[in-house]
Amino acid sequence: MNKKIVVIGGGTGTFTVLSGLKKYEVDLSAVVSMADDGGSTGILRDELGVLPPGDIRQCLVALSTSDLLMRKLMNYRFSSGSLKGHTFGNIFLSTLEKVTENFDEAVAKLSEILRLRGHVIPATLNKVRLVAFLTNGVILRGQSLIRKSNLGKLRKMTLDPCATANPKALSAIREADLIVIGPGDLYSSLIPNFLISGISRAIVGSPAKKVYICNLMNRAEQTDHFTPFDYARKIEEHLGGRLDHIIYNNEHPPANLLKNYMREGEHLVLPVHVKNGRFIGDKLIGRKFAKTKKGDSIKRNLVRHNPDRLANLIVKKILLATR
Amino acid sequence: MNKKIVVIGGGTGTFTVLSGLKKYEVDLSAVVSMADDGGSTGILRDELGVLPPGDIRQCLVALSTSDLLMRKLMNYRFSSGSLKGHTFGNIFLSTLEKVTENFDEAVAKLSEILRLRGHVIPATLNKVRLVAFLTNGVILRGQSLIRKSNLGKLRKMTLDPCATANPKALSAIREADLIVIGPGDLYSSLIPNFLISGISRAIVGSPAKKVYICNLMNRAEQTDHFTPFDYARKIEEHLGGRLDHIIYNNEHPPANLLKNYMREGEHLVLPVHVKNGRFIGDKLIGRKFAKTKKGDSIKRNLVRHNPDRLANLIVKKILLATR
Repeated sequence: MNKKIVVIGGGTGTFTVLSGLKKYEVDLSAVVSMADDGGSTGILRDELGVLPPGDIRQCLVALSTSDLLMRKLMNYRFSSGSLKGHTFGNIFLSTLEKVTENFDEAVAKLSEILRLRGHVIPATLNKVRLVAFLTNGVILRGQSLIRKSNLGKLRKMTLDPCATANPKALSAIREADLIVIGPGDLYSSLIPNFLISGISRAIVGSPAKKVYICNLMNRAEQTDHFTPFDYARKIEEHLGGRLDHIIYNNEHPPANLLKNYMREGEHLVLPVHVKNGRFIGDKLIGRKFAKTKKGDSIKRNLVRHNPDRLANLIVKKILLATR
Repeated sequence: MNKKIVVIGGGTGTFTVLSGLKKYEVDLSAVVSMADDGGSTGILRDELGVLPPGDIRQCLVALSTSDLLMRKLMNYRFSSGSLKGHTFGNIFLSTLEKVTENFDEAVAKLSEILRLRGHVIPATLNKVRLVAFLTNGVILRGQSLIRKSNLGKLRKMTLDPCATANPKALSAIREADLIVIGPGDLYSSLIPNFLISGISRAIVGSPAKKVYICNLMNRAEQTDHFTPFDYARKIEEHLGGRLDHIIYNNEHPPANLLKNYMREGEHLVLPVHVKNGRFIGDKLIGRKFAKTKKGDSIKRNLVRHNPDRLANLIVKKILLATR
């Protein structure tokens, strides 16, 4: 039987890991944070009262074995008219949710259409917003706001209302051989998963090895000067348990790629120098870089993980060394 | 080999015929008029510069062998937010057209997803508007306007710009055993097909039997007091050739169903009394009636053909008596 890998996150980082891992003979599941409320996803949530489609769509596309056309279709973004700013796949998933009145069924149907290799599982089916309480009394409401905010004075984060885990997410976590956390924004993509009642406990209680993939870049006013040690400590704090491995990058990307980031006060996560087997460093910078499109704010995606090297590392150095 | 039937039209009437005929072992094609510019279709044409998706979608749904969910999805209409008034299937087809930059390929892809039994063929791939010239000098531009206008003083109709037929439509027509025209609005759904260069000539030149399905209701200020004779004459005028059969209804629907129509000056098409074999009358009123939805103007669809009786008549009395 194939080994079971559960990837926990949401957003572009999770897309990258899944894209790499799907080339291996493993049983893949993605558990996706459901706190997103920005852009096309935010509009659909507000206007149609649906669960956030964006991160789920990205994971579905990552695991799709359909032709290129279907994947391009799912990511097609309207640039004019009343649909401007919407991504077609988000509309698709939200309409399926309206028609079925059941998000799980909607995801299953779209998985069938996209001929999925693996499973995409919403971490919760509750409609939640991410909330950040700062020590100065300020309350930030909504993932898209929190993503862009200074969290230097963060006191705590919660979901509103409280969320209970999707039973399918808990089963996948309990039955996993390997749990991969990240890469992804610490406060807006990863921690929201651990705030869902039951998720952290299931991860800690699972016999699976737990691996965290450290980000490549620090986020200004959120994780300034963080090293892989700091990221791991934060994850462990919120998880309430110990990570078995932390994977980090020790390659320096071409200097020109860092310029845009530096202008916004964002810097490369510097490698650690330890030899304890828990921290695994490798050259992980991707060779393909997303283009900056006019009007789109995807410039910050320029420095990305190399999905193949990342997946190779996870499978060869960790999964196949498991049990 | 299965006999080949080509249904020519667009809109709800064509949906009805296809729904009935798809239950028979025949090779079905729908040739769809491409002049629609109302509602969701009109907005997508204006905003995205696409070909009209609405009538094509209806035919795709009619011929789909997918589950009920997929068909409900395709016809799902948004009732709030920025997507209000749009039908999901229209957005789906238009996005496929944007991604492929090829309407034919978009229709093929959606046909694959909907597991089509048969073929849906745009009559033309040119972007056209229907134009009506009245004898008093007034020019009406656009199918959705013409549909609602008084055409008592109609001088002629054209497409702007001139349209050439889709070669696939011509092949289907030439190879057909039976060509079914209608039912559908005379001026806004049927005649627009004959205005496309090549279509009428192909129909007239085809060895297929030509059948016209007469409407159930006359349209106020367009086909007032029309009998099946009048409809047949108009079709033959525009076609430039003779119909082999005219199918008409000789059943009186429940009086309460006619009330809404009469209020708008619309009356039942009265049966003819001939015994020449060319005109075939039967009880053709559907037993299922579309509900009137608040805010929707679908009230006029209440009196509909019975798809099964219609298909049975076409297949048993005409197709199987062919050659």
